[in-house]
Amino acid sequence: MKIVTLGEIMMRLTPHDHRRFVQADDYGANFGGSEANAAAALACFGEDAWFVTKLPANPIGDAAEAALKKTGVHTDDIVHGGSRLGLYFEEEACGSRPSQVVYDRAGSAIAQADLSDFDFDAIMKGKDWFHWSGITPAVSDKAAALTEKACQAAKRNGLKISCDLNYRSRLWTPQKAASIMIPLMQYVDVVIANEADAVNCLNFSYDVTGADENVDMHEIQVLEAMRQHFHFDVAASAWRQGAHGLSDQSVQAVILKDGRTYLSHQYNIVPVVEKIGCGDTFTGGLIHGLLHFDDLQKTVEFGAAAAALKHSIPGDLPLLSEAEVLACVQKGGQDGMVR
Amino acid sequence: MKIVTLGEIMMRLTPHDHRRFVQADDYGANFGGSEANAAAALACFGEDAWFVTKLPANPIGDAAEAALKKTGVHTDDIVHGGSRLGLYFEEEACGSRPSQVVYDRAGSAIAQADLSDFDFDAIMKGKDWFHWSGITPAVSDKAAALTEKACQAAKRNGLKISCDLNYRSRLWTPQKAASIMIPLMQYVDVVIANEADAVNCLNFSYDVTGADENVDMHEIQVLEAMRQHFHFDVAASAWRQGAHGLSDQSVQAVILKDGRTYLSHQYNIVPVVEKIGCGDTFTGGLIHGLLHFDDLQKTVEFGAAAAALKHSIPGDLPLLSEAEVLACVQKGGQDGMVR
Amino acid sequence: MKIVTLGEIMMRLTPHDHRRFVQADDYGANFGGSEANAAAALACFGEDAWFVTKLPANPIGDAAEAALKKTGVHTDDIVHGGSRLGLYFEEEACGSRPSQVVYDRAGSAIAQADLSDFDFDAIMKGKDWFHWSGITPAVSDKAAALTEKACQAAKRNGLKISCDLNYRSRLWTPQKAASIMIPLMQYVDVVIANEADAVNCLNFSYDVTGADENVDMHEIQVLEAMRQHFHFDVAASAWRQGAHGLSDQSVQAVILKDGRTYLSHQYNIVPVVEKIGCGDTFTGGLIHGLLHFDDLQKTVEFGAAAAALKHSIPGDLPLLSEAEVLACVQKGGQDGMVR
Amino acid sequence: MKIVTLGEIMMRLTPHDHRRFVQADDYGANFGGSEANAAAALACFGEDAWFVTKLPANPIGDAAEAALKKTGVHTDDIVHGGSRLGLYFEEEACGSRPSQVVYDRAGSAIAQADLSDFDFDAIMKGKDWFHWSGITPAVSDKAAALTEKACQAAKRNGLKISCDLNYRSRLWTPQKAASIMIPLMQYVDVVIANEADAVNCLNFSYDVTGADENVDMHEIQVLEAMRQHFHFDVAASAWRQGAHGLSDQSVQAVILKDGRTYLSHQYNIVPVVEKIGCGDTFTGGLIHGLLHFDDLQKTVEFGAAAAALKHSIPGDLPLLSEAEVLACVQKGGQDGMVR
Amino acid sequence: MKIVTLGEIMMRLTPHDHRRFVQADDYGANFGGSEANAAAALACFGEDAWFVTKLPANPIGDAAEAALKKTGVHTDDIVHGGSRLGLYFEEEACGSRPSQVVYDRAGSAIAQADLSDFDFDAIMKGKDWFHWSGITPAVSDKAAALTEKACQAAKRNGLKISCDLNYRSRLWTPQKAASIMIPLMQYVDVVIANEADAVNCLNFSYDVTGADENVDMHEIQVLEAMRQHFHFDVAASAWRQGAHGLSDQSVQAVILKDGRTYLSHQYNIVPVVEKIGCGDTFTGGLIHGLLHFDDLQKTVEFGAAAAALKHSIPGDLPLLSEAEVLACVQKGGQDGMVR
Amino acid sequence: MKIVTLGEIMMRLTPHDHRRFVQADDYGANFGGSEANAAAALACFGEDAWFVTKLPANPIGDAAEAALKKTGVHTDDIVHGGSRLGLYFEEEACGSRPSQVVYDRAGSAIAQADLSDFDFDAIMKGKDWFHWSGITPAVSDKAAALTEKACQAAKRNGLKISCDLNYRSRLWTPQKAASIMIPLMQYVDVVIANEADAVNCLNFSYDVTGADENVDMHEIQVLEAMRQHFHFDVAASAWRQGAHGLSDQSVQAVILKDGRTYLSHQYNIVPVVEKIGCGDTFTGGLIHGLLHFDDLQKTVEFGAAAAALKHSIPGDLPLLSEAEVLACVQKGGQDGMVR
Repeated sequence: MKIVTLGEIMMRLTPHDHRRFVQADDYGANFGGSEANAAAALACFGEDAWFVTKLPANPIGDAAEAALKKTGVHTDDIVHGGSRLGLYFEEEACGSRPSQVVYDRAGSAIAQADLSDFDFDAIMKGKDWFHWSGITPAVSDKAAALTEKACQAAKRNGLKISCDLNYRSRLWTPQKAASIMIPLMQYVDVVIANEADAVNCLNFSYDVTGADENVDMHEIQVLEAMRQHFHFDVAASAWRQGAHGLSDQSVQAVILKDGRTYLSHQYNIVPVVEKIGCGDTFTGGLIHGLLHFDDLQKTVEFGAAAAALKHSIPGDLPLLSEAEVLACVQKGGQDGMVR
Repeated sequence: MKIVTLGEIMMRLTPHDHRRFVQADDYGANFGGSEANAAAALACFGEDAWFVTKLPANPIGDAAEAALKKTGVHTDDIVHGGSRLGLYFEEEACGSRPSQVVYDRAGSAIAQADLSDFDFDAIMKGKDWFHWSGITPAVSDKAAALTEKACQAAKRNGLKISCDLNYRSRLWTPQKAASIMIPLMQYVDVVIANEADAVNCLNFSYDVTGADENVDMHEIQVLEAMRQHFHFDVAASAWRQGAHGLSDQSVQAVILKDGRTYLSHQYNIVPVVEKIGCGDTFTGGLIHGLLHFDDLQKTVEFGAAAAALKHSIPGDLPLLSEAEVLACVQKGGQDGMVR
Repeated sequence: MKIVTLGEIMMRLTPHDHRRFVQADDYGANFGGSEANAAAALACFGEDAWFVTKLPANPIGDAAEAALKKTGVHTDDIVHGGSRLGLYFEEEACGSRPSQVVYDRAGSAIAQADLSDFDFDAIMKGKDWFHWSGITPAVSDKAAALTEKACQAAKRNGLKISCDLNYRSRLWTPQKAASIMIPLMQYVDVVIANEADAVNCLNFSYDVTGADENVDMHEIQVLEAMRQHFHFDVAASAWRQGAHGLSDQSVQAVILKDGRTYLSHQYNIVPVVEKIGCGDTFTGGLIHGLLHFDDLQKTVEFGAAAAALKHSIPGDLPLLSEAEVLACVQKGGQDGMVR
Repeated sequence: MKIVTLGEIMMRLTPHDHRRFVQADDYGANFGGSEANAAAALACFGEDAWFVTKLPANPIGDAAEAALKKTGVHTDDIVHGGSRLGLYFEEEACGSRPSQVVYDRAGSAIAQADLSDFDFDAIMKGKDWFHWSGITPAVSDKAAALTEKACQAAKRNGLKISCDLNYRSRLWTPQKAASIMIPLMQYVDVVIANEADAVNCLNFSYDVTGADENVDMHEIQVLEAMRQHFHFDVAASAWRQGAHGLSDQSVQAVILKDGRTYLSHQYNIVPVVEKIGCGDTFTGGLIHGLLHFDDLQKTVEFGAAAAALKHSIPGDLPLLSEAEVLACVQKGGQDGMVR
Repeated sequence: MKIVTLGEIMMRLTPHDHRRFVQADDYGANFGGSEANAAAALACFGEDAWFVTKLPANPIGDAAEAALKKTGVHTDDIVHGGSRLGLYFEEEACGSRPSQVVYDRAGSAIAQADLSDFDFDAIMKGKDWFHWSGITPAVSDKAAALTEKACQAAKRNGLKISCDLNYRSRLWTPQKAASIMIPLMQYVDVVIANEADAVNCLNFSYDVTGADENVDMHEIQVLEAMRQHFHFDVAASAWRQGAHGLSDQSVQAVILKDGRTYLSHQYNIVPVVEKIGCGDTFTGGLIHGLLHFDDLQKTVEFGAAAAALKHSIPGDLPLLSEAEVLACVQKGGQDGMVR
Repeated sequence: MKIVTLGEIMMRLTPHDHRRFVQADDYGANFGGSEANAAAALACFGEDAWFVTKLPANPIGDAAEAALKKTGVHTDDIVHGGSRLGLYFEEEACGSRPSQVVYDRAGSAIAQADLSDFDFDAIMKGKDWFHWSGITPAVSDKAAALTEKACQAAKRNGLKISCDLNYRSRLWTPQKAASIMIPLMQYVDVVIANEADAVNCLNFSYDVTGADENVDMHEIQVLEAMRQHFHFDVAASAWRQGAHGLSDQSVQAVILKDGRTYLSHQYNIVPVVEKIGCGDTFTGGLIHGLLHFDDLQKTVEFGAAAAALKHSIPGDLPLLSEAEVLACVQKGGQDGMVR
């Protein structure tokens, strides 16, 4: 199937071996972004996936594009120009020490892209699915306008549209987010979100009367209420369980459709090699399952297992075959699976 | 004591830092093989240990031999010639992601060695012990013929013979294995095996009536039945407990002789740095103990502790002194020992 | 505040990636020492901290000094001369394999320093606090004499004095330690110690009648008895809980003053990146808290959190801001904190 | 323009930092092959370039394909199957020490590929140019048959055909080479060769009567005679001048057409970072120039400069833009250019 | 002596081992800037040197400051705030391939600093020398205003002022440069420049009638004319000779004062490990010599040797003692010195 | 043949990538020593070579021994005990920057070894050749006594004795050296030396009347005079020509015997990867040639080529086969050979 994604890809610079920034003579360099990661997941699962963005016409932008090409993502709709590629520095979390991020993404090419840079009808024509996340419109007002135009073109061309709300407090406030995201929800068929995203991006809260003690069950009820309120066809979510550094960490996921709940098993993720890109891998697995499996329980297991496996792969980009994810699902209860 | 081992040594190529093959610009290179690892363990424990094989007469073969020399293993009975050294690529297991191995070992020098390459009577003369594993005859029909000749020469020269059944499904089928291994069992005094090896290599299964719920106890009963059936003097086994990535993984071992069971403590192996070569280290510890300790409980503790310690050492080859293993045994219940 | 520390700084050489010495073609090189580490912790918390020692007038000594300068520690009272910098080789602990240290520190510049090398009155004048550990007088008789002179000068100039007993069995015997340390205790206001230090450095043991079953509580009673016996104003201690390699390791600490006990929460330290310098970080946090917080419970939490965070930072030298440690304290029970 | 190439791609394993094999714990891993390198050069210059081969259906084969994708080479005509990817070990030349290569390429997927694996008419249809080298038919008899079928299909579909004779003494003898290569020359429009290739691949020698003392001029006369004898439209060659390790090494190239000689400047290559893939980069530059420049002097400068620049890029695959090569050509006599 | 410098410090990110950006998974990270480098040179020669700038109040800014502290540069006049640290990516030159730089320095903290951020009278008071380069006012109009105020405060407080013209075509045009730099020349006592700087920064050209054929001599005549025109006390210059990659590269320098020319020997720089920071090291050596040697020939030799030695040290910051530079000067003609 | 060597082996710690000590977070670690290097050269050429020393009974001593074992050197006469392994830190020379060495070798096990540690008659019995260098007696008075006893035992047992004078100004003065070395010369058959060694170790100078202008010829005349004066059977020498960093560096060597001079070709060594151990490799080649070639011209070429090739191999220990050295000799004038 043919899937289009739209968003920002950045360079991440990470010291090696748990070093602090002040100790770093070397930085691991890696390219990624929420939609690019999802596109890479889809390409690895065998889909035809496009990532659409604007990259600076310099060798750093070229390197970002080559990283995508290597995974098989189509890059021919990427526009070149603008001043820079956004980047950020990251110290990885370790024990009681949380991860530390220094963003340096202002003024990136995609944040300053114009509507005239893209012909979205040409991009969407003949494609099956359009995916974006809440990060894209958060990047700048110009990027928010791009997102709206892309959604409209996707709708016009008959694509299904999915959105991962992905609230980012460093990019916008809940007020700003709601003002932009709520109108965009009319285009969305499949939403990926958690309760905090619902509150922050969509100003949506739900009082769970007589709710289950279980925190996860609470989240699921909020998600279902949101799904109904916004008339989403499908709502889905994946989450990590267990504190960092402990031995019982796992990933679990849920799909909600037609009033039914499809809850996955829990998949072991210890030791955690990489936290970034795991949610996007769930998204990729979800879209792949919705397009091909015709079985929502299998789809949610596939998405959860993909997200769990991604915790073992360094870098943002998922590098997992469909066969590997299915094998993880089928090991049921052994080895990797916690319960 | 003087101990001879016979088998294949290969190069293992492993990406660093949990990278997938597609991400690897560098491979860690390491030499090992079941019998070579056991020989290295024995050399480190102070024995005179020989590893016998055929290596290509090129610098890659020379590098494999130098790696053995560095541990003190005697290499003067190695034959040089043939076309290549077998090799394999390995991604290490991580979280829910299993280890992935791509074998490239066909056509190796030892797989294509002729009977005329070796004078086994000269090799065995004056030695005390001969060890081989089920991998050696599995490598090729020629290697199976070598194994038989070696066993016969060892027997003629009065050596004790040990065999680690070590079933490898990528090298042969249970049918093929049984046809070759069962006749060889007549030469074996000490067997190292688990229940699956018994089934696959020796077509031996045993119905444990009223067996203990405990899985390990079940294994021990099968092992004892096999020991009696094949008239082995000693049967032994070591196994890992606890799922990968969890906090309570350990190694435990057993020796069976004269109808008595010698069960070791459990030895902590978290974090696991290396899984390869740990069973061979148990074998090395077992042979060392049988030759010197005159105390089967001490022997089984020594073997289990050696295997546990090996999990902390990168590469196939064990690099552990007798003193270090004894210190681990004696810490009893503290630090490294789980119970 | 202005804080003076006195001691030895050494080069530590550590193989990478859990390699054994025999496998090492490369050694990570790192500078540290108990008092230097505490000084670095204090400098990172915003104090004016001096480290006083004697370094060889060669580029290795210069590199040690530059490493301190980088953290902001003042090095202008360091004396240059003598023959060598002490060093040691360390294999890190892993699973059942304990850490292995080969010391090569005999004959270092500070061990052979003369009283005439330092003008302690000039060093102490105008400063607020003097910190040393039991390692300093243990290094050599000359260093013991230096320590006494430094304590006397500190007292004359009105500084508070803290001492971490830090018994080192490779440097002296309990008899030798007691003969030197007990007379020095008259100068000490704040002691950092555990029960074993009390026994070995001060020949002090205490029979805990009807003591709590809880091992830690036992330690606290001994510490309080010692505090009273030696008329220390404050006694403090920090300790790791949970065996190496297990998932529930944490750091906890206590401060004893005026008959009251201030016990910290437990702070998660899994995975452990570095064990060295964590106690010294506690000491740095303790001194910083005593000087600024006027709240002993906050002080003990600060010290314990600082020590826990240090487990995530490679190298001896703590690289933690006050804000980071306070953030860890305030997360109370979430993420990093075990209970 | 659309260019098809056919050949073998291998993994090269190289110790770092001038280490000998016996010193190597790590190998740099890199994918390349004569035609794959040329295809990558063409893709980097902006052409649509296909590399056709057979790769094993395993992650090592996938990694080779991903390396090509990253450069923009089209891989959709690659066939998957067979047993292994060929590989070789290489110590780089250094001073008086020559490079040392241990081949391990027997039995590769492409060497054992069948004619039925490829539909060459489908592959060639609508394309403009077909390039192969003498290595391809040398790999195996099956590969020689593939090469012939590919040439015939290319001819049928109206493509221009280029061949780099590339004699490899480890793969075949001059007798074998001539028996296969001479009949294939009828399809070739553009040949890349030096005198030794002419002798070894085509059994072609030419007595240069009254020839210039200049060695290079001698080569050019032989090349021209060969061009006329085999009715090639164009003959071209590039060569290094100056002994390894000396300061005046450079690359120069020539194109011969219609009885005219186009000789390039000399381009500096010191220091040499990589020797492999430089001739293939010349080939890529030659084809690019022939297709676009309509100026043979510009074409030969472009090819020579591209080959010279490739000496600065680690790995087989050229990573050079057209703009970079043209800038090198235009610097004329400054900096990089020797004369 | 007490020396103040003012300017921008940036992070440089460089791929290892001659890799191109598209090949880089790792970047070496290094901090430097023209004035910071000169300050570090001076600190290493034993001066009290201050570097004044504005750094972002984040860990990347802190790491830049720590790198300076490590060399002994005083950082207590650095102001903290603003949004980001400027950075740039650099591929090192190699053979015919020129170095390639991708700047990403817009919007840095110092470029956006206000006059109110600095109290230049407090900074200059009691100091002996103020050094800046033409890069500082080129960074932004705000930075140009800072430079003027700093010069005025330095003059008021009786400091000598040196300026390295350092024209940067990526930061401003000759028109813009001249409009800002010419008025600033009134404050300058010691200028470091070459002919291109004179033309581009000061709109100064000089027709060398009957000039020597020798290019360097031509430069010296222009420099002397410029010195007289602008009433500089001292003019100085250092330059590399010999094309990149060739064996006879060297550094030579000149000082012009009172109509006399002091020309240094040529100092070998092969192999070149680092090109960045070498001119700044000359500047540091020049200032050090002018302050201490009272011998202009010795001063120019010292500066040239320091610049030559810097070519052997990776990273921007010079790490050379006075003794090392003097030893290089004194070896006269042997080893390192070409003539 | 069976060859015994006696001396000290040390650990060398070298920063990577031309870093200065103050920049080094990592040190390459390498074991070597003049006689150990010669023994390794001999073992690689196929001899049975023993290295005799005393090593500390700790893992650092064991690592040194394992490094020798890996090359095939026999280590069974090494004695274990004493306090430490000598070590030194080395910055490699680069351009005008000379190499910098910080020795830390005082108090090593071999320097403090007693005569009673070794049974030299047992060691020498049945061997053919004994080699030592002037470093061995320079290490300590105890080591000088060992050297004398070893020479006497070698003589008693009929071994040929070679000595590389190898004067080390950091270990002793010419006065001390002469007092110890001159009496030892009575045992020496083959001496390796240059003019400075003759002066410093043997207080031998020779006025070359009417000597050739050529510096090397001057050296040869001195060497011949010394040979006659001390009644050496053979005198030999190897030297580097061409300044560091220049393109025409090479190695040349000479053998003097029976009044005849055997001068080698010059062998290219650019680029120089390693300078340490090259003289010892010449020594190894010389001894191998004297024992086997019966052709002094071939012997001197072999020694010179071996020394040249060693410049390409990182680390002290030569890793060269006889075939490789002979191939270098036979390339005569091509590639690696300068003339």
